[in-house]
Amino acid sequence: MQTTQVSDYLVGLQSRINSAIAAVDGGTFLVDPWQKPSGEPLQGSGITQILEDGAVFERAGCGFSHVAGPRLPPSATQHRPELSGAPFEAMGVSLVFHPRNPYVPTVHMNVRMLAAKAPDGSEVCWFGGGMDLTPFYGFEEDAVHFHQTCKDSLIPFGDDKYPRFKTWCDEYFFLKHRNEQRGVGGIFFDDFSELGQDGSFSMLQSVGDAFLKAYLPIVERRKDMAFTQRERDFQLYRRGRYVEFNLVWDRGTHFGLQSGGRTESILLSMPPHACWSYQNRPEPGSAEDNLYTQFLVRRNWV
Amino acid sequence: MQTTQVSDYLVGLQSRINSAIAAVDGGTFLVDPWQKPSGEPLQGSGITQILEDGAVFERAGCGFSHVAGPRLPPSATQHRPELSGAPFEAMGVSLVFHPRNPYVPTVHMNVRMLAAKAPDGSEVCWFGGGMDLTPFYGFEEDAVHFHQTCKDSLIPFGDDKYPRFKTWCDEYFFLKHRNEQRGVGGIFFDDFSELGQDGSFSMLQSVGDAFLKAYLPIVERRKDMAFTQRERDFQLYRRGRYVEFNLVWDRGTHFGLQSGGRTESILLSMPPHACWSYQNRPEPGSAEDNLYTQFLVRRNWV
Repeated sequence: MQTTQVSDYLVGLQSRINSAIAAVDGGTFLVDPWQKPSGEPLQGSGITQILEDGAVFERAGCGFSHVAGPRLPPSATQHRPELSGAPFEAMGVSLVFHPRNPYVPTVHMNVRMLAAKAPDGSEVCWFGGGMDLTPFYGFEEDAVHFHQTCKDSLIPFGDDKYPRFKTWCDEYFFLKHRNEQRGVGGIFFDDFSELGQDGSFSMLQSVGDAFLKAYLPIVERRKDMAFTQRERDFQLYRRGRYVEFNLVWDRGTHFGLQSGGRTESILLSMPPHACWSYQNRPEPGSAEDNLYTQFLVRRNWV
Repeated sequence: MQTTQVSDYLVGLQSRINSAIAAVDGGTFLVDPWQKPSGEPLQGSGITQILEDGAVFERAGCGFSHVAGPRLPPSATQHRPELSGAPFEAMGVSLVFHPRNPYVPTVHMNVRMLAAKAPDGSEVCWFGGGMDLTPFYGFEEDAVHFHQTCKDSLIPFGDDKYPRFKTWCDEYFFLKHRNEQRGVGGIFFDDFSELGQDGSFSMLQSVGDAFLKAYLPIVERRKDMAFTQRERDFQLYRRGRYVEFNLVWDRGTHFGLQSGGRTESILLSMPPHACWSYQNRPEPGSAEDNLYTQFLVRRNWV
């Protein structure tokens, strides 16, 4: 496996996903290639793609980035002290799609690779990523379909993967300050190399390729459902939680912003509109209350 | 000086400010007293007051809180190692007012005290706080008035205070990931005890008492100015920056959420509505561009 194979796969994945999303929406992604100014310690480039104010998606951001640095930061080498300070490259595709219709869930997907040169000259690499679904109004069949597709993508790589990555996702996408899950979860993994470079990359591809299968049927099913201002208001309120999670708890976002990453690309994940209001608690038994009690909790969906 | 004097002052200040704001608005503050459940390590109570969806203020939150704990956290004793682990109490009033009209600036004010029992039984206390103004459309006379009022409040306590606290404010309310000031600044101080307990408390009172003088004339001057969707859109976009600052950089907010503070009281500062869009850059020479080039920069206003 060469790192160019990985970057080819990632750029292709970004393009496939965005073509499919643009087709459903009828709109067009802005394609914004960027390059870090030379002279900065972190070198790199990327392609930021975003569709704003579409018919189906109010804001759909999907970025590819590929950076290289002279020294791995300590946060990346907790489990690999022998690589501390080694030259590295990192690449990935990350997306968050914010739909317009409150019955369509928001979704996040990320696939990434980190490679470092060990002191003996050999290259070591590991993978991370996953996807998770954040509904505003809960539908069991959507959560089951999303999880089943995630599970299917991991089956060829061992029966242990889905349960491990499902639990990891529940633990990661948790808003401690609200005592709430971000949504119905999905899968999350990091620091993954246990199937060897080729096997681990195959697993990453399987997860990336599963994204459209996991999400698009849900979009098709919900995008034309009628809704009123009530559902819209609840969507805007719940999007505030997405902002809170990403800015307070998400390591990639928080440290990216604090350490000089490309702000507009990191904040592709922000919703187009979000609201806050004090002690907004839904009426017991309402559809909104049902979201909290039945969906924003840890459950085995498949 | 007794700590009850300080809490009496703070509760009175909250009440005076909110009465004046409610009078301008025509609306009413919700008054929500709360108490931490017994059994938690941090004991305490507070009064959260909030006016939402008013005629002049879309969201105006002002909280008083008074907590006590068995051991000062390390973050509070950097400059006072002898007090590490000492029993403490902390109290303060904190407010953020989000006006409806984009010509009225958003404002933040905070006054607080921390008291700890030294190993020899004596009580040590220090003060912090300040206020800062965040316009969406810049008016020199507003920035000058706000800073002049801050300066006047500090004059009786020494000529050095305003310049020091003005610079401190510029440094604190800076969005590193945007390379932007949050607004036109004001004053900020922390760990302050250099005038002794009584003198330092007098200074705190002078700052707290100056708030309405600093802000209300600006509200009166701007609240009935005509605006269009363009100004509203820019206001919503800029409020996204307020969210970014508070959740990513503000120590009180970020650590409060991560360490189990009362979430709904901490997030009183969030705007009612906020927006994000990609690479939103105003046209050179426009009023919006003028905000960035003339107001969101470090300037000597008085």
